[in-house]
Amino acid sequence: MSPPSLQERFAPHSRCFGCGPANAQGLRLASHVQGDLVTASWQPDDRHQAFPGMLNGGIIGTLLDCHGNWSAAWHLMQAGGLDRPPCTVTAEYAVKLLRPTPLDQPLELTARIVAASTDRATVEAELVSAGKVRATCRGLFVAVRPGHPAYHQW
Amino acid sequence: MSPPSLQERFAPHSRCFGCGPANAQGLRLASHVQGDLVTASWQPDDRHQAFPGMLNGGIIGTLLDCHGNWSAAWHLMQAGGLDRPPCTVTAEYAVKLLRPTPLDQPLELTARIVAASTDRATVEAELVSAGKVRATCRGLFVAVRPGHPAYHQW
Repeated sequence: MSPPSLQERFAPHSRCFGCGPANAQGLRLASHVQGDLVTASWQPDDRHQAFPGMLNGGIIGTLLDCHGNWSAAWHLMQAGGLDRPPCTVTAEYAVKLLRPTPLDQPLELTARIVAASTDRATVEAELVSAGKVRATCRGLFVAVRPGHPAYHQW
Repeated sequence: MSPPSLQERFAPHSRCFGCGPANAQGLRLASHVQGDLVTASWQPDDRHQAFPGMLNGGIIGTLLDCHGNWSAAWHLMQAGGLDRPPCTVTAEYAVKLLRPTPLDQPLELTARIVAASTDRATVEAELVSAGKVRATCRGLFVAVRPGHPAYHQW
């Protein structure tokens, strides 16, 4: 048994398509803190293909976006001495697809914070499958304030 | 009855998660040529949420990625005088999420070519919902050669 993911700890009822534990039709990404990194493993499914045998690039972006967002939220929680993560949203993310990602292999995500202030963090992440980096992502994630539609929606 | 989409015309058996007509569990984006633009309409579903009422940013990226890729493929087909589009793949895409996108409204995508050579095109696209631009995307799409895993996979 692995320990609960960040999503299971802090947003168990979320139905986010990418990472909501309560969305049975979603990707259910589960992110874990490992020192200064946030990591995740995920098994693609045939429905997520771009073409036979290879993973869709939009699904890759979805995984990296959610994983980056949780990495930012965790960082802001730790840096701010909070007892739970702030509600962060994605301002932007950029994905580079370096080579095809196989559907029949588990993939590993790793994210790290590369810049941050009190309410936002820039995260760089990569996707490794079958021993090779397949994709990278850089995203900016921002904690929203009361009044934003996402505030306290987790 | 609308005319067949680019996907229906040229890749009716595709099971791409974002735009494959034959993937019943995918998004089934349908892109149409309108002069120099490529457009699409799409209705979000509750399973695609980020949080209640709002669309997930990864789904937004998936739509803009597939739509951009088909826009590039169509452009390269026309520019090259080909009888069908080349197999193009995404090299990179960057998404800016300007404001939340409602789940209960149809959304409209528009894409245009901003740079191209014989085997690649850069596409800028935007997503409008309820009268406001919600997201923009810039992507680079490349026609693959024989031997690439994506070649003739549509």
